[in-house]
Amino acid sequence: MVMIKAYAAFEPKGELKPFEYDPGPLANDEVEIDVSYCGICHSDVSVIDAEWGEMPYPVVAGHEVVGKIAKTGSSVSHLKIGQVVGLGWHAGYCGTCHPCQSGDNNLCGTATATIIGHYGGFAEQVRAKANSVVAIPAGIDLESAGPLFCGGVTVFNPLVQFDVKPTDKVAVIGIGGLGHMALQFLNAWGCEVTAFTSSDAKRDEALSMGAHDTLNSRDADAIAGAAGRFDFIISTVNVKLDWNLYLGTLQPKGRLHFVGATLEPLDIGVFGLIGGQRSISGSPVGSPSTMLQMLEFAKLHSIKPVIEMYEFADINEALDRVRSGKAHYRVVLKS
Amino acid sequence: MVMIKAYAAFEPKGELKPFEYDPGPLANDEVEIDVSYCGICHSDVSVIDAEWGEMPYPVVAGHEVVGKIAKTGSSVSHLKIGQVVGLGWHAGYCGTCHPCQSGDNNLCGTATATIIGHYGGFAEQVRAKANSVVAIPAGIDLESAGPLFCGGVTVFNPLVQFDVKPTDKVAVIGIGGLGHMALQFLNAWGCEVTAFTSSDAKRDEALSMGAHDTLNSRDADAIAGAAGRFDFIISTVNVKLDWNLYLGTLQPKGRLHFVGATLEPLDIGVFGLIGGQRSISGSPVGSPSTMLQMLEFAKLHSIKPVIEMYEFADINEALDRVRSGKAHYRVVLKS
Repeated sequence: MVMIKAYAAFEPKGELKPFEYDPGPLANDEVEIDVSYCGICHSDVSVIDAEWGEMPYPVVAGHEVVGKIAKTGSSVSHLKIGQVVGLGWHAGYCGTCHPCQSGDNNLCGTATATIIGHYGGFAEQVRAKANSVVAIPAGIDLESAGPLFCGGVTVFNPLVQFDVKPTDKVAVIGIGGLGHMALQFLNAWGCEVTAFTSSDAKRDEALSMGAHDTLNSRDADAIAGAAGRFDFIISTVNVKLDWNLYLGTLQPKGRLHFVGATLEPLDIGVFGLIGGQRSISGSPVGSPSTMLQMLEFAKLHSIKPVIEMYEFADINEALDRVRSGKAHYRVVLKS
Repeated sequence: MVMIKAYAAFEPKGELKPFEYDPGPLANDEVEIDVSYCGICHSDVSVIDAEWGEMPYPVVAGHEVVGKIAKTGSSVSHLKIGQVVGLGWHAGYCGTCHPCQSGDNNLCGTATATIIGHYGGFAEQVRAKANSVVAIPAGIDLESAGPLFCGGVTVFNPLVQFDVKPTDKVAVIGIGGLGHMALQFLNAWGCEVTAFTSSDAKRDEALSMGAHDTLNSRDADAIAGAAGRFDFIISTVNVKLDWNLYLGTLQPKGRLHFVGATLEPLDIGVFGLIGGQRSISGSPVGSPSTMLQMLEFAKLHSIKPVIEMYEFADINEALDRVRSGKAHYRVVLKS
């Protein structure tokens, strides 16, 4: 029996402590990854802290994994031992449902969440079904790549799914872990990019990351003045805003898209949707094939998450950095 | 001076009375239509009764016009005197804004509403910019065609705009003036069609108009049992429902689309959107080119509004029929 060494939370908001588990025999369709780097996403905090409801402890979080294939199951043919790969929010898909067979694996109703009822990447190794593991093209900076596998694909995927065009005018709400990647992707996508920022202090940074303009989201007059301006707005925040005000900044046929999970209902006026044929929508992460597109696009355009690097030994300090919202912009652990 | 004889409301909820007005010289880009038939839409009641706010009285309502071209402005080339035409919610488009130039005239920000600040079709004649008037193909039943120009295109347009496919499973909320046309269009579109009905009594009628199945919208268990079933739901009602319950009946990537104008905000849970990449949207009427597509589709598939016919002299009685919600399913006035 070869045990896997990990860091686990044993209770809500509990400190992470060393934890070893027996992964059992490797299934035919699984791979085992030696973890080189693992990003910390706010969802790791949400699961460790049981913000979304009860969780099955011990929790081994970590779902922005970069590593090397250490073992392959007998039926795995597209991944080889030693290959550099990434693993995100999902550690396996059924492969047979309509979304899976349509290439929308990320919408699979029985997908395995990497860190819920499954042991994740805050560990020396992590296992996953091979169908959720993505080979990383040569030339990608591996130190900073982890956050692409959850936060990155979460903001990249809507551009693909909703056919955002280079001629579109796009705004990003929330310039943090997700938003700073969205600005880079959108700039490279060819769009006119506006950042809604909560402070003028963030203006220069937003501009340096790809925004062509900024709007202060605490200035209702400024937002009202942008009436009918945007084709697409992507919201990465998890707080309640005056969504009808933002709806008003959309052009006819515009879309307000949520990747940030606000717990409070959206109190949307239906006339604001009908009058201009506007849409509101949401989406989760992205499929493996979209992850690969993202990686190739990121490589071509030198898009990289801005990260703070911590040793695995300092995982609790690193986690608090994310928990407090002070990370600038993402935190990555290295083994 | 040749006066136009009409029926007008002079105050909110006021009885319609004979009213004559001088239309002035015909503009170069206008046509004058001799009204043969005019449908009564609930929006006529809303404007006459000032339900949406103050209105400029006298109001001459009527925006589901079927008639013949009586006069053409000097620059009008595509419509000829004597030609049978229809006129809907809009009586003119700017023709130069981005939506107009993209074929989305119905989203033109300065479109003329046929019955707000303009005299509509409850009259012997009505004028409109030629760019909002649609030639009716031979073979369309003219007596019942009026309601196609507002209610009809309102439910047809989303199928075009959102690329509804014949393989989609589609549900309709509200089997009334709009919904009974939606069932017919969707059936001919090839979709599996489900009608949400408020009573079992309406089941047989819904089936006869094209539904393959019905669900009782007052039976929360039945709705919950339809989890993940539909690709597209079109809501034609103007009352508040438990929208999150309906969201749950959508497949991944499904859309809940509003053409009914509910005044109360939609209290949508964002997790319900994100988890399955679902959308919520709305749309108003349709462009002239979409109206023509609709007419050709209706002709091919023998789709007709189900109407009650009244003489113009009985316009107040007819209006009350719509106001009370008892019309079965649309009311048309004939000259």
